[in-house]
Amino acid sequence: MAVGLSPPQNLLIVQGIRLASCHSGIKGNAELDDLVLIEIEPGSTIDAVFTTNKFCAAPVTLAKKHLELQSHSRYLLINSGNANAGTGLKGIEDAQASCHQLSELTNVEVEAILPFSTGVIGQPLPVDKIQSSLPQLIESLAEDQWQQAAAGIMTTDTIPKARSRQININGQPITITGICKGSGMIKPDMATMLAYVATDAKVSQLELTSCLQQAVEGSFNSITVDGDTSTNDACVLVATGKSGVEVDSQHREFVEALNELFIELAQAIIRDGEGATKFVEIAVEQSQSKHDARTLAYTVAHSPLVKTALFASDSNWGRILAAVGRAPLSYFDIDKVDIYLGDVCLIEKGLPHVDYSESKGQAEMEKEDIHIRIILNSGEHSATIWTTDLSYDYVKINAEYRS
Amino acid sequence: MAVGLSPPQNLLIVQGIRLASCHSGIKGNAELDDLVLIEIEPGSTIDAVFTTNKFCAAPVTLAKKHLELQSHSRYLLINSGNANAGTGLKGIEDAQASCHQLSELTNVEVEAILPFSTGVIGQPLPVDKIQSSLPQLIESLAEDQWQQAAAGIMTTDTIPKARSRQININGQPITITGICKGSGMIKPDMATMLAYVATDAKVSQLELTSCLQQAVEGSFNSITVDGDTSTNDACVLVATGKSGVEVDSQHREFVEALNELFIELAQAIIRDGEGATKFVEIAVEQSQSKHDARTLAYTVAHSPLVKTALFASDSNWGRILAAVGRAPLSYFDIDKVDIYLGDVCLIEKGLPHVDYSESKGQAEMEKEDIHIRIILNSGEHSATIWTTDLSYDYVKINAEYRS
Repeated sequence: MAVGLSPPQNLLIVQGIRLASCHSGIKGNAELDDLVLIEIEPGSTIDAVFTTNKFCAAPVTLAKKHLELQSHSRYLLINSGNANAGTGLKGIEDAQASCHQLSELTNVEVEAILPFSTGVIGQPLPVDKIQSSLPQLIESLAEDQWQQAAAGIMTTDTIPKARSRQININGQPITITGICKGSGMIKPDMATMLAYVATDAKVSQLELTSCLQQAVEGSFNSITVDGDTSTNDACVLVATGKSGVEVDSQHREFVEALNELFIELAQAIIRDGEGATKFVEIAVEQSQSKHDARTLAYTVAHSPLVKTALFASDSNWGRILAAVGRAPLSYFDIDKVDIYLGDVCLIEKGLPHVDYSESKGQAEMEKEDIHIRIILNSGEHSATIWTTDLSYDYVKINAEYRS
Repeated sequence: MAVGLSPPQNLLIVQGIRLASCHSGIKGNAELDDLVLIEIEPGSTIDAVFTTNKFCAAPVTLAKKHLELQSHSRYLLINSGNANAGTGLKGIEDAQASCHQLSELTNVEVEAILPFSTGVIGQPLPVDKIQSSLPQLIESLAEDQWQQAAAGIMTTDTIPKARSRQININGQPITITGICKGSGMIKPDMATMLAYVATDAKVSQLELTSCLQQAVEGSFNSITVDGDTSTNDACVLVATGKSGVEVDSQHREFVEALNELFIELAQAIIRDGEGATKFVEIAVEQSQSKHDARTLAYTVAHSPLVKTALFASDSNWGRILAAVGRAPLSYFDIDKVDIYLGDVCLIEKGLPHVDYSESKGQAEMEKEDIHIRIILNSGEHSATIWTTDLSYDYVKINAEYRS
């Protein structure tokens, strides 16, 4: 179902990072990998952002704690098929048990291991399956396993998501490679479902945090499938420094490459959104505040009526109008509003555009990539977010998931 | 598809109110009525609440203006099949033209006529069809046409919605009868899709306004199908005074009967929600504020993942947990939260309940009427709202509406 999305190609290794993926048995289907290990060489910097969901999963609680105690993480241990969320104290113990086993096998402190889980909420984590797979997983660590890792963290995703970038700084190449997963329960708030990005640039801890925050804001924090923020969202950025090239959050070229890669990964989640048949960009321009711009974009993006009209390729723009009109904005002057569907003007200064015709609107709605632009003509702030339509398959996937 | 909803029965006339319904041709299907007239005898009091959608429809703008200029409305003119919204200045002129024609035929001031429309947004109103039907409509006005009127205002509704109540005050009977319509684009904010309630009690203008406000709060302002607030919502309350019994907003028995009737009408909209297979009550208790209680209830109600789990009768309570955890509340202590599905405790003090079993959860989820109770144990405020599940038919109805 993925909209205009191909399997990742030409993934580049990042010196200082090795990965491995295997089938441990958490997922019933033996052909699907469900356990991924990412090894980070000593001397790297790392930071992560996590879900703001108050019912956050046990691995999120533990990973945050480990990251606070010790900033030199060495292993990321990720399972798919089970979220280890809503599992209470037992869930914490299970996450700890996996980390302890890995700590013993690799001889690193347990706090240098960050656990992540994604999948069904409310089921006990099959720790024994994870533990018995760890020796094999460590054995198979290799630098060129990014694609396998991207596949191993999938749940309802239909396609692995990974991207690489290489830029030259003062004649020296720097590589950035990242993977992510996510398809439903997507409205990240300070993070996404799961994303792991690494670079061989040398970035100090402070600067890395700054790079991560700004990259996440315009990418994973600007997408939504269904408005549901997951209990397990996490996004990790690692800088191994192996290229020997030092950059910081003010380095234009590096930051641009990083931000673009984050946006591509975030958009890949939307293109593979549950049941998606459309990739929809919603841009709000000239708002009095950033907050208003984002609120308006999300109000339109979450409207089930707008989403079903998109699915039907029906130029029923009245539904966009109705969603704009109900958005809880601090400032809104209806007489100044322009609304475009692609290049077609629907509303000018709050009134239906005289040149609009059903056939023009229809032509835009039939495209796979849809652009909705709402210009408030009231200020200098803007926001762009990406979302999907709402199809039969979204309902099917979510009515049948678990069974 | 309506969930546990039968056609209205035993509707009682309200002295001072006459109604008529006909097919004017706005709806393509000649078997369906699409134009309704409600006549109110002089000396009645009336008040209305309207949508807060900033792109409100032309008839809403005009009805509000007429109601401000003159509080003794005599006619309510309602068409279905066309919302006359997003139609700009032409829309206002069209609504005015219908009112003027009715004014001439009935010899009442044009400001004593309130126009209402519901249906597709963004299409010009076929005024000629309305105008040519008005003589016949006036001719057929009768006291016993409540059921016909309820049918005439339907759009995607599958069943007419109407209720009557009779109470005795000091040995004298008072009647309240009301009709409403609505099935999709339902998340009323100060009003519902369309509702018209009349009583023969005598209620002063000031007291009527107070009665309407409190009745709407716990009924039409406490339901949601899809979170989409319509451009055309309106709710009207009329008191003809013909019973000779005077009441006010402090009269316990009258207010209770009125509130109950409003709640029944609001719940009927949910039971007939687009594609609904479940009727879902979400109660939030012991919150620090009313606002938090309502925000939390609506966050759960709007979650597409909760709604698809409800459709599948899948006791995937992790989705309820995730929705509770992401609700933007001013105060939330996870260690105090209890969550119930019917009588089955899912979460106690923030942790999975030890006695919970899949079979117990499943038994609750398989019911047609579902009760979700979230107890925050943090204050004295509560809120109860009603919603539906999200089914294939919701997508089907909204992908095919217009075609």
